[in-house]
Amino acid sequence: MATEGKGVLLKADSIAETFRTEIKSALSSVPRKPKLVGILATSAAPSKFYAEFTKKQCDALGVEFVLKKTGAAADESLAPGEDVEEAIIEANEDESVDGIMVYYPIFGVQQDHYLQQIVSPFKDVEGLNFKFHYNLYHNIRFLQPKTLASSLPSTSAADAPPAVNDQPPAGYVKSILPCTPLAIVKCLEFIGVYNTLLPYGDRAYGKTIAVINRSEVVGRPLAALLANDGARVFSVDIDSIQEYTKRPRQSPEERKYHPRHIVHPSTLSLQECLALSDVVVSAVPSPDYKVKTAWLKDGCVCVNVAADKNFETDVREKASLYLPTIGKVTIMMLLRNL
Amino acid sequence: MATEGKGVLLKADSIAETFRTEIKSALSSVPRKPKLVGILATSAAPSKFYAEFTKKQCDALGVEFVLKKTGAAADESLAPGEDVEEAIIEANEDESVDGIMVYYPIFGVQQDHYLQQIVSPFKDVEGLNFKFHYNLYHNIRFLQPKTLASSLPSTSAADAPPAVNDQPPAGYVKSILPCTPLAIVKCLEFIGVYNTLLPYGDRAYGKTIAVINRSEVVGRPLAALLANDGARVFSVDIDSIQEYTKRPRQSPEERKYHPRHIVHPSTLSLQECLALSDVVVSAVPSPDYKVKTAWLKDGCVCVNVAADKNFETDVREKASLYLPTIGKVTIMMLLRNL
Repeated sequence: MATEGKGVLLKADSIAETFRTEIKSALSSVPRKPKLVGILATSAAPSKFYAEFTKKQCDALGVEFVLKKTGAAADESLAPGEDVEEAIIEANEDESVDGIMVYYPIFGVQQDHYLQQIVSPFKDVEGLNFKFHYNLYHNIRFLQPKTLASSLPSTSAADAPPAVNDQPPAGYVKSILPCTPLAIVKCLEFIGVYNTLLPYGDRAYGKTIAVINRSEVVGRPLAALLANDGARVFSVDIDSIQEYTKRPRQSPEERKYHPRHIVHPSTLSLQECLALSDVVVSAVPSPDYKVKTAWLKDGCVCVNVAADKNFETDVREKASLYLPTIGKVTIMMLLRNL
Repeated sequence: MATEGKGVLLKADSIAETFRTEIKSALSSVPRKPKLVGILATSAAPSKFYAEFTKKQCDALGVEFVLKKTGAAADESLAPGEDVEEAIIEANEDESVDGIMVYYPIFGVQQDHYLQQIVSPFKDVEGLNFKFHYNLYHNIRFLQPKTLASSLPSTSAADAPPAVNDQPPAGYVKSILPCTPLAIVKCLEFIGVYNTLLPYGDRAYGKTIAVINRSEVVGRPLAALLANDGARVFSVDIDSIQEYTKRPRQSPEERKYHPRHIVHPSTLSLQECLALSDVVVSAVPSPDYKVKTAWLKDGCVCVNVAADKNFETDVREKASLYLPTIGKVTIMMLLRNL
C-alpha cells in the first residue's frame, strides 16, 4: 500500500470489515431483527449523507433501519430541528424500537447536549447520555442494566466489578462507550498500538498519545479511555494542554496505581508534545487546522477524525501509518452498541 | 427613585426582600436547619464573590452553608476544577446535605454541562439537571418526587396534572426551575408584567418580550417559561431570531390552545423586534454588547441579566422601568428551591 519511502496509508474498510463479520454472526443468533431509528432534522448535506450511509450498512447487515425526518429535513419550509424532540420521545416510547441515533449538529453545542440527554439510555446507541460518559471517565466498564434506569450516576467506581477481561461478570453488561472515541480505540487496537501481551485494561501502557480536541463528544472521552488503558495522553485544545495519566508522577515509594486517570495541566508546548507522541489523533472541526508534519515524531501513527483533513499532505514523510478517516468504523461501533 | 422625565431605576433588593420574608417564614416551621454545600473550584473573582455572597445570605436566613474548595480555589498550584467531580459525588452521597450549588464557569460550556448532570436531581437547587429543563420546556409544572429517580424524562405532558394554580395537587411537588430564569420571571411578576387578573399559567398573555441570549442556562429556558405563560417572545441570538409562542398563528377557526410553547424562525430584524417589545431582557456575556436605546419602544421595561451592562447609559430615556441587576433575586430563588 505504501509508496516507496513513505508511511502506509491505511483505509478504514479493512478495520470495519472485522466488526461487520462479528456483528453478522451475533445477529444470526437473535430471534428478531433489531430496529434502529435514525432521526434527521436538518437539510445539511453531511447529515443526509451519513443517514444514507447508515441505511446502507444496516441493509447489508440485516438490521431494520427507519429514517424519521423532521423539521427542515422533512419540509424545506420548516426550521432545522423543528419537532426533533417529539421524534425522540416517540422513539423512546415505541417498544418496537431498539436503538435511536440522531444526526447532529442540529441547534448547536448546548441545545444538542440537552437533546442527547432526552434519548433513553436503553436505546442510546451513540453512547452520548451523561451516564455513559460518567462510567467512561470513572473507568467503570460493566454495569447492572437496572442502574441505567436511575437518574443518579452509576455505582461509584469502588462498587463496580473489576475488569479482568473483555467479558462482563454475571448480571452485568458492558457500559456503552461513545461511538467515535470507541471507534478510534478499535482502530488503535487494529494498528497494534494496544499490546495484547499486556494485561487487559492496561494495554496502551508505554505509549504516548496526543489527542487534539477536547470536546465532550470526542476528545475528552478519548483521552480518558486511552489514559484508563495505561497511555500517557496529551489532551490539546485551543487554550490549554493537559496531561491524562493513570499513574501519578510521584516518587516510586509513594507511587500507587490509580483505578482511573488523573488530569494535570501540562507545561509542554504542542511542538514538544508532538515530539514525544507515538500516536497523534486529530479531530479539529476546521478545514484550516493542520498538524505540522515537521513537528511529528519520526515513525508515529497519525489518525484523522475530522471531516476535513487535519494533517498536511506530506504527513506520510514522517508517519509510519496514516489513517485519514474512521467513519466506517464508527458506524460499526454504533451497530455493535445496538 | 426616578430622575425627572426619566424611567424608574429599580433595585433588586426590594424584590429580594419579599422572598427573604417568605423563606424565613417557611424555615421557621422545619425541624432541622437545611444544609447547602457550595463547591468552589476556581480562583475566579466573580465566583469567589458569589460564594461569599451566598454565605452571607444563608447566615441571615438561618441556612447552614458549607463552602467546599477544590482545585485552584483550594490551592493555587492545583488546576481549576481539579477534583470538582469528586466533591460533587461526595455531596450527593452525604445524607446530611440538602442542596448543592457549584460555582460555574469551571471548564467551559461542554464539560460544565456534564458536571451539571452529575449533581443529584434531589439536591440540585440551581435547577440545571436536564430533567428540570425537560419539564420546563414541556410546561410540566408539578411532578411526583419518585420520577426524579428515573433516568428517563418525566411523564409526558399529557400525563401531568393540569396547573390551575400555584399549588401542586396531592402527591406532587413543584418542578424546580433553573434559578436565573425563575428570578427574572419573579422580577417581571413584581413589576406587573404578569397580570394577576388573568388565569394562572397565562398571566403574560398580551405581552411581547424580547430575550437577548439563547443559552441553555438563561435565554432558552426563559423564553420557554414566558411563552408557556402566554407571552409572545422573540428569542434573539447571534445568528438567528426565533419566535416562541403558545398560540399558533393559524386562522381563528382552527386556532387551538397549545399546552406548551412552539418555536418558529422569525423574519423580523432585532430593530423590528425591539420596536414591538414591551419588555427587553438581555443576558449577553460581553462588555461590548449594548442594546440601542434608540430602538427601544417608548415606555418599555428593560432588565439586564449580564454581569456587564447590556443597556446604554441613557436607557431610561426610553424605558419606563430599568432593572440593572437581578443577582440578589437569583440567590433567593436558589434558597427557595432548597
